[in-house]
Amino acid sequence: MTTQAAWFPGRLQVLSDAECMDLLKEQVVGRVAWNEPEGPIVMPVNYAIEGSSIIFRTAIDTKLARQLHLGFASFQIDEHDEYTQSGWSVLVRGVLSCVEARQPANEDWKVVPWAAGDRHFAMRITPLIITGRRIIPS
Amino acid sequence: MTTQAAWFPGRLQVLSDAECMDLLKEQVVGRVAWNEPEGPIVMPVNYAIEGSSIIFRTAIDTKLARQLHLGFASFQIDEHDEYTQSGWSVLVRGVLSCVEARQPANEDWKVVPWAAGDRHFAMRITPLIITGRRIIPS
Repeated sequence: MTTQAAWFPGRLQVLSDAECMDLLKEQVVGRVAWNEPEGPIVMPVNYAIEGSSIIFRTAIDTKLARQLHLGFASFQIDEHDEYTQSGWSVLVRGVLSCVEARQPANEDWKVVPWAAGDRHFAMRITPLIITGRRIIPS
Repeated sequence: MTTQAAWFPGRLQVLSDAECMDLLKEQVVGRVAWNEPEGPIVMPVNYAIEGSSIIFRTAIDTKLARQLHLGFASFQIDEHDEYTQSGWSVLVRGVLSCVEARQPANEDWKVVPWAAGDRHFAMRITPLIITGRRIIPS
């Protein structure tokens, strides 16, 4: 597979904090990423926003939960359009913590995992730095 | 924003190596990720597949190039459907190297960046481990 030539290369534009937050509120699925000695793990999760934090849920027996390290973690969302070769991305760099481990899960967290199983760990990423950029068709 | 309740939670399924490679060949945009002390950086790029390697291009003056560390890096692709709450993801963990820095860029690399500018660094991620999973509507 080869990508098509970009006849009219796009311009990169930095997104404001407000734009990044708006995009985070609009989306439903993003990617949690954390450092591992042999390169980061990046895994999609469905999430909710609470204040400026990202909330998602997992279960103790998932790969995600086994591998998750409390501490620094990132969260990323993006969208792109192949036809116009445009898109945007937002990267949240922050700290991962476990907000609650309750069985059954506290439904007040209002984020219901797409995958089956009792995912009763509510995890939070508290942002330290939020950056975003957009590639605009020229 | 809250995600909708999953009335019929989906089943998680592990993808075979062949399925992961097929998905990598089909897509055009993925995410390069690498470790940073304060959590990973995750950045979308358009890419091409050469053998089992991921090839993308960047310029020396981009944020991507300034921050890229040669060594372990990951590459991730995914797709999801909000209505059926289904999707898949593939994670490539490997080693990042610079295959060529030529000005003008060697167009034999057949991956033309969407963003404007002379992105004459061809970068390669050589896979060590490829994993993928799918969440199937029940």
